[in-house]
Amino acid sequence: MKIVIINSGSSSIKYQLIDMPDVEVICSGMIDRIGLETSNLTYVTNNVKLEEILPIPTHKIGLEKIAQLLMDKTVGVINSTDEIEAAGHRVVHGGSAFSNTVVINTEVKDKIKQLFDLAPLHNPANLEGINVAEEIFENAQQVAVFDTAFHQTIPVVAHKYALPNYLLTENKIRVYGFHGTSHKYVSEKAIAHLDKNSNIITIHLGNGCSMTAIKDGKSIDHTLGFGPMNGLIMGTRSGDVDQSVIFYLVNSLGYSLEAVNTMLQKQSGMLGLTGYSDLRDIEANAENGNVDCQLALAMNAYRIKKYIGSYSAVLNGLDAIVFTAGIGENSSYIRKLVCTDMDYFGIKLDEFKNEIRSKEIREINTPDSKTKILVIPTNEEIEIANQVFELLTK
Amino acid sequence: MKIVIINSGSSSIKYQLIDMPDVEVICSGMIDRIGLETSNLTYVTNNVKLEEILPIPTHKIGLEKIAQLLMDKTVGVINSTDEIEAAGHRVVHGGSAFSNTVVINTEVKDKIKQLFDLAPLHNPANLEGINVAEEIFENAQQVAVFDTAFHQTIPVVAHKYALPNYLLTENKIRVYGFHGTSHKYVSEKAIAHLDKNSNIITIHLGNGCSMTAIKDGKSIDHTLGFGPMNGLIMGTRSGDVDQSVIFYLVNSLGYSLEAVNTMLQKQSGMLGLTGYSDLRDIEANAENGNVDCQLALAMNAYRIKKYIGSYSAVLNGLDAIVFTAGIGENSSYIRKLVCTDMDYFGIKLDEFKNEIRSKEIREINTPDSKTKILVIPTNEEIEIANQVFELLTK
Repeated sequence: MKIVIINSGSSSIKYQLIDMPDVEVICSGMIDRIGLETSNLTYVTNNVKLEEILPIPTHKIGLEKIAQLLMDKTVGVINSTDEIEAAGHRVVHGGSAFSNTVVINTEVKDKIKQLFDLAPLHNPANLEGINVAEEIFENAQQVAVFDTAFHQTIPVVAHKYALPNYLLTENKIRVYGFHGTSHKYVSEKAIAHLDKNSNIITIHLGNGCSMTAIKDGKSIDHTLGFGPMNGLIMGTRSGDVDQSVIFYLVNSLGYSLEAVNTMLQKQSGMLGLTGYSDLRDIEANAENGNVDCQLALAMNAYRIKKYIGSYSAVLNGLDAIVFTAGIGENSSYIRKLVCTDMDYFGIKLDEFKNEIRSKEIREINTPDSKTKILVIPTNEEIEIANQVFELLTK
Repeated sequence: MKIVIINSGSSSIKYQLIDMPDVEVICSGMIDRIGLETSNLTYVTNNVKLEEILPIPTHKIGLEKIAQLLMDKTVGVINSTDEIEAAGHRVVHGGSAFSNTVVINTEVKDKIKQLFDLAPLHNPANLEGINVAEEIFENAQQVAVFDTAFHQTIPVVAHKYALPNYLLTENKIRVYGFHGTSHKYVSEKAIAHLDKNSNIITIHLGNGCSMTAIKDGKSIDHTLGFGPMNGLIMGTRSGDVDQSVIFYLVNSLGYSLEAVNTMLQKQSGMLGLTGYSDLRDIEANAENGNVDCQLALAMNAYRIKKYIGSYSAVLNGLDAIVFTAGIGENSSYIRKLVCTDMDYFGIKLDEFKNEIRSKEIREINTPDSKTKILVIPTNEEIEIANQVFELLTK
């Protein structure tokens, strides 16, 4: 079964064509800067790597262009869009409505629309991708895979805020959690590797950063909450911050609330602490003695450590921690900071193994480390393809 | 040396007269509802317990009234205010300026005033108490003891937020921490009891609630931050809440920022979750099957557990947890919830010992519990007297 995976953002589309059940990636690529004269398009198969700059005014024209390339006589991989049996769409916010992957119908689209307010940057773009794909891949079953779905198992004691009750019952304000597709993917890999249903903490460090406490394969707590702002320190997002700071900035220092929101989302985190947004720059500068960069990395790791402790309490145990996503998979620097002075939790890093670069799942703890330290490359597209295939063939 | 301890709030004065170094409480009491026609005054000595309702329009008149009672022929305990050698003032916010107890002079008063913005409900009332005491106890040395001082040892990795750097350097936005006098007092008692400098977590559960990670007798992390709103779930305060909720309430649901501030401080926490603000009512209702009350207590304990885990990571170890203040000393219910399913941290509660009521320091863990569970009654007035005495006699 050929499944096209579509991750539609506000001005971008990422796509992959995957043949299931062999999990063979036939083709992948992306378009970004949609709406500008200089959109970028990439298209990669086993034989071809194509990059093009051209004006792509809308998502529809973008997806049509991709369909054309897929069927192209020279670089194409299919003869007709009819060969594509399913389209798997990443949808960021499923609210309380969706705890599983679903076939898309009018009712599902209405619900995704009702959640626009909870994910104003993401859900409208996700729905646009669905609408366009329905026209272009008209014989494919359209399926939605929600970032929040994996976290629907978080119990009320952890997903409810200590606010007036009606904010949960009427306004649906609660912890939703994000990056669920990634946390699900790597936690399943970890369980398969460990060969038992263990107490696991997954640490997703990418553009966004989050951690999940996983018991018996289920998410039971998570660092991101109602929106994707809190918890760990991210590239430009503050993560956890005392709410009294917000009131002080507005009431005593005269900031507008909008300016504070922008600050917390776009001018804080590693950028606010160092002036750099790329972690590689920050690590290089830290190694050259830049104290702001050294402190920012130490703060970042300190926050991760605190959540390792926190989730060990929630799990009442700890068998493995799992690093994943761009930074988690590649930054031996951050991993080392996190795993230093953590022997109370049975965490002992093998510094040599920590430096090995690989695309494979790997253990980087010492043989006597009670807690396993795993690095597991995430793959949200394959996880989406798995879920779509499972839903449609079960 | 007779020391009068003064804790001056916006419409109240709590006071004690303590003879040092014997730590003999000669007299204690309070005035509240200052400014109303029906102010309450209490005055308690070894022999006398006096309660009076009378109009007390100002702090000055209130403190004069107390001085009169202290020197009264019938109920008094001194002949002249000259016998009082020192006045110890509780001051809530010492900012970054004060990491120790200090003798008050004009410069100190100026600095307390400069911190009004950081503690608008507390510092003005504290300064008013100082000014009035200078007039009434004119021969006493005036000393300020800051709630924040004990937390000045929190390292930058823990006290800095992941916000743009200038908010720390220029605007002094950082974790200050509160209830420092209480955390210091009980942690010193705990260290004396344990007979070594251990890794300790102190859990202050009263009107306000907070936890401190204590290493080598020093505060190294704390749940309250820049203001006294975040961290644990409190009587009417939410504690930790995802900041995106604040932006959503204002931008999508149309709340004013002021209404959100009021909600988070006065309508949230246990009150928002249950409709009750008194923990005894909540426990009684929970025992009678009220699910809101059961959940609120479970959430409260869950948050405390998470911070026990968090601070165990920060400390890289755990020797003892200490419950203190009104709820911490008296609620066996909360203590039991916190200590259940925490054997990963070596925490094993003795359920029988947990139920014993006492004013003494006590261990409530089982003999085989790796981590000690202590209940230690706090006494902020005695801690203030100790600090004043030590400062003036060293």
